[in-house]
Amino acid sequence: MRKIGVIGLGHVGATIAYTLVTKGIADELVLIDSNEDKAVAEEYDLRDTLSRLDTFTKIIPQDYTALKDADVIITAFGNISAIKMDGDRFGELNYNAAVVAEVAQKIKKVGFNGVLINISNPCDVITTLLQRQTGLSKKQVFGTGTFLDTARMQRAVGQAVHEDPKNISGYVLGEHGESQFTAWSTVEVKGHTIEDAAAVCGLDLADLDHRARRGGWLIFSGKHYTCYAITTCAIKLALAVLSDAHLACPTSVYLENYGHYIGYPAVIGRQGVVEINKIKLTIEEQAKLDNSAKIISEKLTSLH
Amino acid sequence: MRKIGVIGLGHVGATIAYTLVTKGIADELVLIDSNEDKAVAEEYDLRDTLSRLDTFTKIIPQDYTALKDADVIITAFGNISAIKMDGDRFGELNYNAAVVAEVAQKIKKVGFNGVLINISNPCDVITTLLQRQTGLSKKQVFGTGTFLDTARMQRAVGQAVHEDPKNISGYVLGEHGESQFTAWSTVEVKGHTIEDAAAVCGLDLADLDHRARRGGWLIFSGKHYTCYAITTCAIKLALAVLSDAHLACPTSVYLENYGHYIGYPAVIGRQGVVEINKIKLTIEEQAKLDNSAKIISEKLTSLH
Amino acid sequence: MRKIGVIGLGHVGATIAYTLVTKGIADELVLIDSNEDKAVAEEYDLRDTLSRLDTFTKIIPQDYTALKDADVIITAFGNISAIKMDGDRFGELNYNAAVVAEVAQKIKKVGFNGVLINISNPCDVITTLLQRQTGLSKKQVFGTGTFLDTARMQRAVGQAVHEDPKNISGYVLGEHGESQFTAWSTVEVKGHTIEDAAAVCGLDLADLDHRARRGGWLIFSGKHYTCYAITTCAIKLALAVLSDAHLACPTSVYLENYGHYIGYPAVIGRQGVVEINKIKLTIEEQAKLDNSAKIISEKLTSLH
Amino acid sequence: MRKIGVIGLGHVGATIAYTLVTKGIADELVLIDSNEDKAVAEEYDLRDTLSRLDTFTKIIPQDYTALKDADVIITAFGNISAIKMDGDRFGELNYNAAVVAEVAQKIKKVGFNGVLINISNPCDVITTLLQRQTGLSKKQVFGTGTFLDTARMQRAVGQAVHEDPKNISGYVLGEHGESQFTAWSTVEVKGHTIEDAAAVCGLDLADLDHRARRGGWLIFSGKHYTCYAITTCAIKLALAVLSDAHLACPTSVYLENYGHYIGYPAVIGRQGVVEINKIKLTIEEQAKLDNSAKIISEKLTSLH
Repeated sequence: MRKIGVIGLGHVGATIAYTLVTKGIADELVLIDSNEDKAVAEEYDLRDTLSRLDTFTKIIPQDYTALKDADVIITAFGNISAIKMDGDRFGELNYNAAVVAEVAQKIKKVGFNGVLINISNPCDVITTLLQRQTGLSKKQVFGTGTFLDTARMQRAVGQAVHEDPKNISGYVLGEHGESQFTAWSTVEVKGHTIEDAAAVCGLDLADLDHRARRGGWLIFSGKHYTCYAITTCAIKLALAVLSDAHLACPTSVYLENYGHYIGYPAVIGRQGVVEINKIKLTIEEQAKLDNSAKIISEKLTSLH
Repeated sequence: MRKIGVIGLGHVGATIAYTLVTKGIADELVLIDSNEDKAVAEEYDLRDTLSRLDTFTKIIPQDYTALKDADVIITAFGNISAIKMDGDRFGELNYNAAVVAEVAQKIKKVGFNGVLINISNPCDVITTLLQRQTGLSKKQVFGTGTFLDTARMQRAVGQAVHEDPKNISGYVLGEHGESQFTAWSTVEVKGHTIEDAAAVCGLDLADLDHRARRGGWLIFSGKHYTCYAITTCAIKLALAVLSDAHLACPTSVYLENYGHYIGYPAVIGRQGVVEINKIKLTIEEQAKLDNSAKIISEKLTSLH
Repeated sequence: MRKIGVIGLGHVGATIAYTLVTKGIADELVLIDSNEDKAVAEEYDLRDTLSRLDTFTKIIPQDYTALKDADVIITAFGNISAIKMDGDRFGELNYNAAVVAEVAQKIKKVGFNGVLINISNPCDVITTLLQRQTGLSKKQVFGTGTFLDTARMQRAVGQAVHEDPKNISGYVLGEHGESQFTAWSTVEVKGHTIEDAAAVCGLDLADLDHRARRGGWLIFSGKHYTCYAITTCAIKLALAVLSDAHLACPTSVYLENYGHYIGYPAVIGRQGVVEINKIKLTIEEQAKLDNSAKIISEKLTSLH
Repeated sequence: MRKIGVIGLGHVGATIAYTLVTKGIADELVLIDSNEDKAVAEEYDLRDTLSRLDTFTKIIPQDYTALKDADVIITAFGNISAIKMDGDRFGELNYNAAVVAEVAQKIKKVGFNGVLINISNPCDVITTLLQRQTGLSKKQVFGTGTFLDTARMQRAVGQAVHEDPKNISGYVLGEHGESQFTAWSTVEVKGHTIEDAAAVCGLDLADLDHRARRGGWLIFSGKHYTCYAITTCAIKLALAVLSDAHLACPTSVYLENYGHYIGYPAVIGRQGVVEINKIKLTIEEQAKLDNSAKIISEKLTSLH
């Protein structure tokens, strides 16, 4: 049976829990939040859905020991108000770094040995810390990273060419933050290179880049958080782990040469990161990736 | 193709939109909110999910004219902060009554002729006003009413007997508010009367009643709103309309003898309320229903 | 993760496999058939769906050892041509009784310790044999039994009153065969007794009984087997086991007083049959149940 | 609301109907077969599922007039026994060409003006005939064509590299028949060209080609028909039409230069074929496509 834990029940964690229940994905769902009342509130709001669903999920609130035999833990803790102050995802760095210490120790203590998918921001830094402190292997821990940003790039390009965003392939890489970049050399529209597609449709790559990011900020400025797209990313990754799909997608994975996690193509299965999918980048793209890695690295250093 | 509109994108409306998109229910989804930025934020957070889903939904923000040929409109406007002041769902009465005037006129103007499902509170009063002001028939308009409260009763009883809440049948009736009541004479646990079930399991009906309501308040006090269970109720009703299911369930329907909407068993299909499902109540239950109707009626009168 | 085995890949077993894959229910699916070519054919027809689905399922053909850690095994072996000769579900008795000996031994040998759901006919007899020969507990083994016949009764009554069959509750009990009967005292239409509903709608119970059964024979005579409704029954039961739903439904369960399996209300969860749901029957209904039990018992005796 | 018709209820048509019902995709489903008993059998086997599903679908058997306002018609008529004689999909040519005359006239007569998706074989020939004889535009009619063969290629490559077939992109083009070919220049494995992937994993393209086709024949020889993968292809196309997804995929579309339908990349939306997706092929691939077109053309000529 499928057992999943969600740690941190803000808008993202709660939406993930709702989706795991209403799509019948989780057989058992462990919900944990630093605010006991919030956890109980989500527990009851979800329990009250069960009469209206075709499936059943056992919901277990606030019990770390129940995570011992979980298949997957999704960490989504955070302090959204901290973002506003700094204006970027690193605003939550100090807050979340402190939470990692507590959460990682508890996960370690109960003997969890499944796969941990981190959403908490700054995603690459926090994923790095979680891997180090939980004692789980580098395969078992990864972050949603630029899987969300890639979805936004697909949306922006799809919108520009009036098509299903699923027709767009390719990657946004690097930090899940300001230094991320679309590796346009990897992007294809229905099998055509982005240059060819852009020529046909009159697209401007810089403008598309702008629109992909702007989407994120339209959401943040309009509702003060984002939750739906990130949830569908996390759900897709969790399902890839549960079913050992060996799904290719960009996530925050540990790259040896950088010594920390960063958004890069990988293959996801039951062990977690089954493989790093090494791809060819242009010299400019490689430089952007190196730069992004440097920024993540500096943030990590700043914590010591 | 299925076209659905959601008016009011607070936590409930947004969660409904998310569910309609991620479950592939709506082919076209019209999103409307008094806050333009909020509507655009939800639009983009939902558009960004499409790369991670197997289905596609066309999302149309802030366009009342697009509602002309919608199959279903779900109204979920409100002012959650108004609730806190008054402590019950009537707290939003004056605010939402004013919104009805605007929304109903716009719906009427575009020539919408589908089914309107209202969630906005106080549900029975607002549903009554929406029917009167949209010019839609009493069949075409209904409210979620005590369909949610019934789900909570099922959860509370199911929890008490350690079973799937879907094993529990029966109704919570009356106002979707403080005067609602569980019609225990209608409640069955796996086909047994609640008295028989209670005798076997040592249940106390007053305690169960308390626990059903307390669940709602645990949610409200822990997260300051409720959104998940109500969403699954609204989705189930919308699907019953789309597929002409003739689904039996308690919703807020117009009862001739009271002259307004109130939570009562009905049958839902493409026309909306296909039938009122007249049931036998005990004398005490009938008195409670009458009392609840009186309270709704007084609120309606207070508005004139 | 969810691991399910299907033994017997005729129309029913194959449709179950298809549903487990296309609804994303199984993470691992073990497919076994006495005809190796058929198993490989189904394996490939299902593998070829994976590019068109949002989920992934690992498909393992013809490997009994893979069943060792399965959560659920569904047995759907049979010899449909044997039915035609006899005209009822007992036609497959001797054929399937022989298959049980082989299948049960193999299941036992690999150390399977999950829940076994039997569909093979005559369902109650074969379920009894499977429980005896696998060494699994009476809780761990049950059959679909009259869960299908109950669905047909719901369909027939729903059709007669022009409503969603889900508005109809109640049970068909006894043998999944000719001696089954609708326990009309348990049937309700939207909370009304069948007598009340019949009076309102002008229904004739004997005619409804006839129409419920006739549906099954219309299917059998038109397509020479039935597969869809029985699949949805089996899937619902499998999900109830996986998620420990404690779902109340009539299935083929072991009743102490009869000493064998028979269609009767039960509660299904992770252990299998969590509880027998003892219900009150009329004297006539009880006599019909006793008669049905006698017929099952005689068939069992005829095998010794 | 979504209304879909299925004409031809063999294994493929019936599985499509089952999927449209059990996934809650169709609100109304019109089922038509030349064998009245078969249509009624499928109708009842599907009606009996409704008590076990969370959704409802209105099922209308054998009524061409009900197709008037359908959104989509899927044609899946055929004579599987004819295939066996000839050994390839052209075996059904004369039989199905005769059926087209009857079906097309009836569709035309009722005034159907939605999108027609053809599965009947030989797919490209029959699709061409259906478009000519229904009077529907070339946009409104298309066939599943090599969308299935592409899924099989994805499966074969995915299996070879031990990955989710969804990681594989690219096209099988030409006739849905023996002259089809994988356009390897279009195939990518996680964003790598097939040559690069093959070099890394030691793949042999001719062998992969063989394995993709062999899968189809393993299925056909083991179960005497194929139904599951083709169903998921048809469902995906139908959903793309219903939701106006503008989904890029290879289907049987009308190419001006050939003057008939053939498997080629296209974009599918509410109008049907929204766009032909012209792609660059190698000289060898283009020659194979021309050859495949010639074979389809000859078959068409043979009918006059």
